[in-house]
Amino acid sequence: MQDFPMAGPPALLLIKHLLDRVLTWAPHQTIVYRDLRELTYAEFFERIQRLANTLRTLGVKSGDRVGVMEYDSHRYLEFFFAVPMIGAVLHTINFRLSPEQVRYTIHHAGDRILFLHADFLPLIKSLTAQLTTVETHVLLVDEGNPTASELAIAGEYEALLAAASSHFDFPDFDENTVATLFYTTGTTGEPKGVFFTHRQLVLHSMNAGWTLAAHSDTTSLRSGDVYLPLTPMFHVHGWGVPYVATALGLKQVYVGRYEPHLILKLIAQHGVTFSHCVPAILQMLLHHPSSASTPMQGWKVMIGGAALPKGLARDAMARGVHIVGGYGMSETCPIVAVSTIKPEAMADDLEETLAIATRTGFPILFVQTAIFDGHNRALPPGPEHIGELVLRSPWLTSGYYRQPAESAHLWRGGWLHTGDVAYMDHDGYIRITDRLKDVIKIGGEWISSLELENALSQHPAVKEVAVVGLPDARWEERPHAEVVVHPAARETITTKELIAFLRTFIDNGTIHQRAILTVIRIVETVPRTSVGKLDKKILRAQLQAMVVKPTN
Amino acid sequence: MQDFPMAGPPALLLIKHLLDRVLTWAPHQTIVYRDLRELTYAEFFERIQRLANTLRTLGVKSGDRVGVMEYDSHRYLEFFFAVPMIGAVLHTINFRLSPEQVRYTIHHAGDRILFLHADFLPLIKSLTAQLTTVETHVLLVDEGNPTASELAIAGEYEALLAAASSHFDFPDFDENTVATLFYTTGTTGEPKGVFFTHRQLVLHSMNAGWTLAAHSDTTSLRSGDVYLPLTPMFHVHGWGVPYVATALGLKQVYVGRYEPHLILKLIAQHGVTFSHCVPAILQMLLHHPSSASTPMQGWKVMIGGAALPKGLARDAMARGVHIVGGYGMSETCPIVAVSTIKPEAMADDLEETLAIATRTGFPILFVQTAIFDGHNRALPPGPEHIGELVLRSPWLTSGYYRQPAESAHLWRGGWLHTGDVAYMDHDGYIRITDRLKDVIKIGGEWISSLELENALSQHPAVKEVAVVGLPDARWEERPHAEVVVHPAARETITTKELIAFLRTFIDNGTIHQRAILTVIRIVETVPRTSVGKLDKKILRAQLQAMVVKPTN
Repeated sequence: MQDFPMAGPPALLLIKHLLDRVLTWAPHQTIVYRDLRELTYAEFFERIQRLANTLRTLGVKSGDRVGVMEYDSHRYLEFFFAVPMIGAVLHTINFRLSPEQVRYTIHHAGDRILFLHADFLPLIKSLTAQLTTVETHVLLVDEGNPTASELAIAGEYEALLAAASSHFDFPDFDENTVATLFYTTGTTGEPKGVFFTHRQLVLHSMNAGWTLAAHSDTTSLRSGDVYLPLTPMFHVHGWGVPYVATALGLKQVYVGRYEPHLILKLIAQHGVTFSHCVPAILQMLLHHPSSASTPMQGWKVMIGGAALPKGLARDAMARGVHIVGGYGMSETCPIVAVSTIKPEAMADDLEETLAIATRTGFPILFVQTAIFDGHNRALPPGPEHIGELVLRSPWLTSGYYRQPAESAHLWRGGWLHTGDVAYMDHDGYIRITDRLKDVIKIGGEWISSLELENALSQHPAVKEVAVVGLPDARWEERPHAEVVVHPAARETITTKELIAFLRTFIDNGTIHQRAILTVIRIVETVPRTSVGKLDKKILRAQLQAMVVKPTN
Repeated sequence: MQDFPMAGPPALLLIKHLLDRVLTWAPHQTIVYRDLRELTYAEFFERIQRLANTLRTLGVKSGDRVGVMEYDSHRYLEFFFAVPMIGAVLHTINFRLSPEQVRYTIHHAGDRILFLHADFLPLIKSLTAQLTTVETHVLLVDEGNPTASELAIAGEYEALLAAASSHFDFPDFDENTVATLFYTTGTTGEPKGVFFTHRQLVLHSMNAGWTLAAHSDTTSLRSGDVYLPLTPMFHVHGWGVPYVATALGLKQVYVGRYEPHLILKLIAQHGVTFSHCVPAILQMLLHHPSSASTPMQGWKVMIGGAALPKGLARDAMARGVHIVGGYGMSETCPIVAVSTIKPEAMADDLEETLAIATRTGFPILFVQTAIFDGHNRALPPGPEHIGELVLRSPWLTSGYYRQPAESAHLWRGGWLHTGDVAYMDHDGYIRITDRLKDVIKIGGEWISSLELENALSQHPAVKEVAVVGLPDARWEERPHAEVVVHPAARETITTKELIAFLRTFIDNGTIHQRAILTVIRIVETVPRTSVGKLDKKILRAQLQAMVVKPTN
């Protein structure tokens, strides 16, 4: 097609262009950090330029990995933009990992520089001899200066920014340049590095942004919203929503270290309208002593990271919170589906809304989905066709950093394999029934541990529940449920009553009859991962070590 | 960055992916054609596949140009998708051009096949000897079969579709493959071919879609809307909105040949909520006898193609119509700016809303703008800094088909030069003051013909107005205004009264004092181009031929 000239310059999908219009659209709009700081977008962009100059002064070059260990903050948002915008790779370090895993990820990423909140100084000091790639450190502090240290400290963040020039010309480069890198902890082996390019992050922003804006007034993300994320920014770029919120010029509130009292205070003070979190965080906020005095009417909360239990959704809706399910994983940037309600299904009926909100989600724009059986053959819709959910989209990670075999495995047959067991319902919604590894096989029948959790969570005494399958001589596997009950119910509730409750779901056909074999224990807590998900790996190990005996 | 593996397949920005989710999201939603036909999206997608098979059977290969001469219809929407989705190039022929220009564009495009509405058969028959690239024709008819013809007719559209297989696997290919081609008539010379790739059309859809969805409830385009375009589909893909509406699964209504009575009937019958058109079309609908009985409350209309006169906007708003200005041109796909109101500026005040709605627009997401002076230097914001509006964005045409010199000129200095004279206001909105060629130079001062039109349009007697500059011995140029008045005012209005009205704008400082030199004529009609814009080229020629003398 040589007749079609290419006269103009290539117009690239670079992160910097998410800022093209916002600096004139909303220059006076603000970005808030705890009860400590409030910046305008104009100031924010000036700080991005100062940070870019600081990075260059510290010797950061294109392709260098820049590690950040920090709570959710305006500073983190500055890293989200400035680091990739100079062509470097932002490594968002998960500080909730074990010290050994933190060491592994920094070393594996090959970070040349670390930006550290002062709280993490002791940890990094203890690891410093092993962090051979790290040449320098910059400290992030809220107030005052931290004490001197034996680390190679280049300085304190605010002081470095103040000393840097406020002007930086962000360059053009290939839109397939890697922008971000972080590590996901799988069920086995070392953490795996997942990475995204500028093009991927931009396309994720456009399509998550468009889908969230175009659908469902009650759960939309639009101009005028006030945004407060409750998913750590180290975790898949805070689900990518900070990029969307910034492009739209929304007021944003970053809460620092997660402290329920402060979070509730900030929600009330700034009139927050849109958040996202895992179910456990919403649970925590709804049951906190300050909760009742916090106005929540109209607060839109996207829930992801774990299935949304109906009981929790009902509690939230009773407070006027609008709940919508989001689905994704580290490998998917992450948003690929949102449980948006179709216009014709809009109803005032709470139970109906609840039923849709707690579905896994409908694929967002530019996501292709399929359900594969064990032979990579696509299955038709319907609950009887359960298989593995596979995906294609322009923003899925191309693989794992320095792990070609695992990357090829993730993408076998040309589709990203989620490891989630699901079916497509007849309305086109994805219905995750379980993680592939969490399906419980009882005498040849597959039973979803999520369905069991969902059923038990609806008992009024139940606060939290986790179900895993454990080996069983007779049945191959048998479900074990760990139940945390509300304090008020602690004296009265029995496992027998919970089994009877489960039987009602069996009787009405929503759960397979073999669920009656579930072994229930009432416990104080259930183990969770660093990002607040149920940690079934730990739970399974604990239970197997205990050799739990069925009591019913 | 060889450490970052590329395991997955490239996920491409292809037009077919705009349909990824809609076939499960809205399979029963409908696409309406006049009062003749209503298809579901499921049927629509089946017809796209039948059309793809038909094209292949007719010998259409990747890169071939497929010419379409058709009114707005469900069939046209099928061409929008099927032709590019097989890798061919859709040439949307402007049937309002002169026969010679139609011949030129078909020949210049090298169309191998023509899909023709039967109404255009006589024209094409008259040209057939000169259309040497065209090998075959397919007829588009609403009902019955047209009579046989000496043309090489492959068949009638519906018959061919019915005979074709309903299954087609749309291939992957480079996202930079050209998808569409059409011709724009400039001020001089032959029509110029403008073309867009899959990537450009997809990115235009995402960003126009996201911007229109995220902003301003009163003028948004979202799930639940009912869409009826009033910009011909041959004209810059109906402003690209049919792609957006289809991706969102909206109900769509296509009106065929523009007949005001039928358009108003369809608006009422289907509860249309979103349209777009040039000012003249809105004008026509508001003043049609059926208008008063058509409910228009809440109808959102995006106006583009020409500046929106305040008088017309006020008339529309009085009917409950929500008006928003859109800005773009053939070379820009076309949407690059929309006069969205900022959340903090939302007001119930009609005049304030009007003032914003009639601005040219705020750049949409992923559009970079600048105002260049005569030396390609960027100017700061403010009405005192008038220059040429230049653009960058991932969806601007890379040039003109087979015209490398014109392409390079369009993109001189790495920016697309719009030929529009504008300034950026202090809120970041683009304010077009004129076409570069339509600025009137009065004794060294530049005066905008648009500002003069805008002022005169606000006189209650004025229905339409067009202003051009004509050579003047003393002043270099002098403004000439052609005014069409409402029938009721025809007997009473005088040019003197209109000049006095103009003086009030001069007195309050909104128009330059030299505007008093305007020569006003009251006329029956003003000339318009094939797409309904004021045709100042013709008007200027007519007036110069007449040697109009100033009478005031």
